[in-house]
Amino acid sequence: MFQTYDAVSNPTPAASRIAQLRHELACRNLDAYIVPRTDEHQGEYIPADAERLHWLTGFSGSAGTGIVTAGHAALFVDGRYTVQARSEVDTKTIDVVAMAEQKAEDWLAANLNDGAAVGFDPRLFTLAQIERLQKRLAEKSIKLKPIAANLVDKLWGDQKPGPPDGEIVTHPIEFAGRSAQEKIAEIQSALKSDGHAAAILSSRESIAWAFNLRGSDVAHTPVFSAFAIIHQRAKPQLFVDTNKLTKQARSETKSIAKITAYEKFFDRLKDLKAAGKLIRLDPHTASFAISRALGSSKNIARAPDPCIDNRSIKNAVEIAGAREAHLRDGAAVTQFLAWLAQHADSGEVDEITAAQKLESFRADTGKLKEISFDTISGSGPNGAIVHYRVNSATNRKLKPGELFLVDSGAQYIDGTTDITRTIAIGKPTNAMRRHFTLVLKGNIAVDTARFPVGTRGRDLDSFARRALWQAGLDYDHGTGHGVGSYLAVHEGPVSISKSGAAPLKPGMIVSNEPGYYREDAYGIRIENLVLVREAEIPPDGERPMMSFETLTLAPIDRSLIDTSLLTKAELDWLNAYHAHVAKTIPPLLDKPTRGWLKSACAPL
Amino acid sequence: MFQTYDAVSNPTPAASRIAQLRHELACRNLDAYIVPRTDEHQGEYIPADAERLHWLTGFSGSAGTGIVTAGHAALFVDGRYTVQARSEVDTKTIDVVAMAEQKAEDWLAANLNDGAAVGFDPRLFTLAQIERLQKRLAEKSIKLKPIAANLVDKLWGDQKPGPPDGEIVTHPIEFAGRSAQEKIAEIQSALKSDGHAAAILSSRESIAWAFNLRGSDVAHTPVFSAFAIIHQRAKPQLFVDTNKLTKQARSETKSIAKITAYEKFFDRLKDLKAAGKLIRLDPHTASFAISRALGSSKNIARAPDPCIDNRSIKNAVEIAGAREAHLRDGAAVTQFLAWLAQHADSGEVDEITAAQKLESFRADTGKLKEISFDTISGSGPNGAIVHYRVNSATNRKLKPGELFLVDSGAQYIDGTTDITRTIAIGKPTNAMRRHFTLVLKGNIAVDTARFPVGTRGRDLDSFARRALWQAGLDYDHGTGHGVGSYLAVHEGPVSISKSGAAPLKPGMIVSNEPGYYREDAYGIRIENLVLVREAEIPPDGERPMMSFETLTLAPIDRSLIDTSLLTKAELDWLNAYHAHVAKTIPPLLDKPTRGWLKSACAPL
Repeated sequence: MFQTYDAVSNPTPAASRIAQLRHELACRNLDAYIVPRTDEHQGEYIPADAERLHWLTGFSGSAGTGIVTAGHAALFVDGRYTVQARSEVDTKTIDVVAMAEQKAEDWLAANLNDGAAVGFDPRLFTLAQIERLQKRLAEKSIKLKPIAANLVDKLWGDQKPGPPDGEIVTHPIEFAGRSAQEKIAEIQSALKSDGHAAAILSSRESIAWAFNLRGSDVAHTPVFSAFAIIHQRAKPQLFVDTNKLTKQARSETKSIAKITAYEKFFDRLKDLKAAGKLIRLDPHTASFAISRALGSSKNIARAPDPCIDNRSIKNAVEIAGAREAHLRDGAAVTQFLAWLAQHADSGEVDEITAAQKLESFRADTGKLKEISFDTISGSGPNGAIVHYRVNSATNRKLKPGELFLVDSGAQYIDGTTDITRTIAIGKPTNAMRRHFTLVLKGNIAVDTARFPVGTRGRDLDSFARRALWQAGLDYDHGTGHGVGSYLAVHEGPVSISKSGAAPLKPGMIVSNEPGYYREDAYGIRIENLVLVREAEIPPDGERPMMSFETLTLAPIDRSLIDTSLLTKAELDWLNAYHAHVAKTIPPLLDKPTRGWLKSACAPL
Repeated sequence: MFQTYDAVSNPTPAASRIAQLRHELACRNLDAYIVPRTDEHQGEYIPADAERLHWLTGFSGSAGTGIVTAGHAALFVDGRYTVQARSEVDTKTIDVVAMAEQKAEDWLAANLNDGAAVGFDPRLFTLAQIERLQKRLAEKSIKLKPIAANLVDKLWGDQKPGPPDGEIVTHPIEFAGRSAQEKIAEIQSALKSDGHAAAILSSRESIAWAFNLRGSDVAHTPVFSAFAIIHQRAKPQLFVDTNKLTKQARSETKSIAKITAYEKFFDRLKDLKAAGKLIRLDPHTASFAISRALGSSKNIARAPDPCIDNRSIKNAVEIAGAREAHLRDGAAVTQFLAWLAQHADSGEVDEITAAQKLESFRADTGKLKEISFDTISGSGPNGAIVHYRVNSATNRKLKPGELFLVDSGAQYIDGTTDITRTIAIGKPTNAMRRHFTLVLKGNIAVDTARFPVGTRGRDLDSFARRALWQAGLDYDHGTGHGVGSYLAVHEGPVSISKSGAAPLKPGMIVSNEPGYYREDAYGIRIENLVLVREAEIPPDGERPMMSFETLTLAPIDRSLIDTSLLTKAELDWLNAYHAHVAKTIPPLLDKPTRGWLKSACAPL
């Protein structure tokens, strides 16, 4: 199984650990120390040895920042995590602060005296993050001091896990679609035209993509810890623990790159600095430590990680793989939904058994490499916690008269999936049906949109919300995120959200997941992945347009749809979607599920 | 009459004037000189003595930038003006460049050698503009050199008109709603809480608003040339030509402010610099010259012009005034539409007579102070030119079988209006009706939107476009702009557009004006002004919401609506809007127009 259900947070040790950290601060004449929830590679998933914030505070969420001063300890979390953080940490020792109300930098400015010194680990912050902090804190003459040795690591000591040692394998060309050689040549050609001598890659996803390698150093995303330098002319250098590479991966990678020990990366940066060449660096992915190692700003060309855009636009092979993966995954999810329909009314299924059953149906495909994130399996009020992660302490039965929200995904070698379905256990109330239908209207509005070249995610976000807004309702998360190809389930640069400034481009895969959350009652989310493609230009149309192709294939609970709230076009969409599902996935289903699917997809 | 219809552009003198300018550049060792279309106050409308770009190039549009080097002359214009600019200037002498394709700074970087010197008048650029230019040009070591004496003025010489001398009057409290004293106290209180010693005001609209004064220095907007310094404690200083103030305006203003000659403003800045106090400055409205006069950056607190937000949120008196103004204006427009219905089919009405007739109906109200911008009166293909300004050379008859687009507005003491109607002359084609109906759907989608607190203009812009997008169509302008209260018809900070980042707030008045333009055939735009207000929260709604109240009152051409393309809700909106118009404005109409209105507003 790829997910555990232990209650992972333990608030008890925080008080003494924070006290020890304060002692370290005092010894170093620091007034504060910042502990982010990131590692050297700035990804969403991090290996166990980087879980410093969790170790220090007890908070297990995927995003947050801790700050410790002599008198205070604060944990800054976003809207998804305020409730969870308050339940996980010792709130007598740690103040949980919602970032929307106060940013960490404003808190520092308010809580420290003029001229104070704030320590941080320069490997754990991006250049852009430190510059933003510096700018804000300069107003109060507060100084940021990079501290080379991580202070939490010092306290963690022998108890700290070792670095991850997952195997690294080749991602075969029949799934990658393009050779590593070709991808690297493309980056080199961009470096040439931009006049950059080399580019630094520090994102795990970028390196895995560029070198057609996959690893298992972190949960749920098949990546590995590495750095890379892509030289304009010379062979690229890959900094990685060579022992982790399979024989095949090592031999293939050696033919196109120089493989060097992971630890040598910063030394090599010093060589680049000495050579005085112009090095391309993404201030939003590269750490402050990397930029510092390269020396003065005239050696650094700030530009986006050259893999991000290319990675997000899937090639024809990746697109074909995504369709295959969604067919397989849709069938597994449908098996699960049919099983749920048969068992849930009994009141004996709980959130954990449901998540395990779903994982088992995916494993039955024989192709499951990993789940793409911890399954969100929320019954009743737990469904209203947007990033709920069930554990043995919170586990709850699925009860008739309640809703069950399940957001899950799989890593297959041909594609990454992410799907949310909300299911009525027993008979839903009219309010549940109304809210579900409003969310469905938002999902359909995004799915059916046509939009011109240049349209950004933020230009579409309101389509998903309009029906809810008209009803005085809304949801506090983005509508969609980019999804990788057997890579991270959350992938930049594009997002359908209020801040999504990157333009959508044909070949990108994004999620479409509006929701509605009634606190202490239920959560609703309907999520399909969609592929951006060039739209047919209708007769009399003048401009090149894009549209979405729905990739996800699993029924939407008909019992939750109030057709009186749908327009004819919306009802037509729903019936056509169900007809498509009913036509495509049955060959992958067992016989009873085929029968169930027929009624689950019957026209409304 | 407030509008002339002379062909204002004359491309002939540009060649010799640019040659003379090149001579000035050579004498000063400058490699380029930038001529913006702005003046010291950075407003959209400028007095005749500031029309330097027009004098130099012949281009008469309201936005653009000229650059002259030894070998090239280029005029940078936005999408609204590319066609017009090419027809107005001598394209053998001047290259017209669409800003979307190349920005002025990129052109400079591409056309100048490393280390080149670019001259500019520091009074005519904002601090933010110069900083952006500097940043881009620094990459090529190109230097920006402020040149105190304007080089175009030097060439213009005696022919240059004198500064404007329009009368300045009090804007009475029964229309302003709040006293100047109260507004200034509010600014002072903000200065106090922010720790700023004073704020600089350089925008004409801000000064007119803060001091409850109105002038007539520029066309169409009742403002006057002035600067002001609002001190945190001392009396504010207004720098203005005292002779322009009426006796009443002088005496009322004297009671709350110190009035100083306009020319003394920059001297006073030197005093502030000497005092070393922290001065609040808006880098987006204050000129580079102002920031330079204040000295080092530690004397300057960058913050938005303190009037912009307050000005955009209309108080109860201004809102009541706006409703009155729209009632009056809607009646005048309706008189015009009825007149047009009677006369246009003859083929004898042309664009100029139509615009004059419309202005005369507004003048008949006895309340017309000015028109709020040059009327856009475009028949057939002229309607497809988004910012078309008819003149004797382009004037065109309204012909049966064509569309006529008229975008116009009025300045009344109680409010500023802006309305666009598109009218079928004779029988429209099916394509015209389809396109008109798609635009109408966009207008209705914005008008009927509910949206949560914090929603920005850009979150609503796509609602106006969706129906067009689905048909493969779009329009290349924003959907709406803020509108002042007997002030500028284009007012910040809010806009409904892809870039509209300011949140909408109750009390703001914005336009809602989607369009569609079929090149060489016709233009369609439907524009109403709407007031942002707190929305009633529907039963079961959870969040505070806002919505729009439609202020504009004039019929929408029924003959152009294809009801088969409307949803029931859209048709209901249209019929309710027409019923409201038919109920409210008849008391202000003559008898024949009342009869016409009844059929123009009959339910569909």
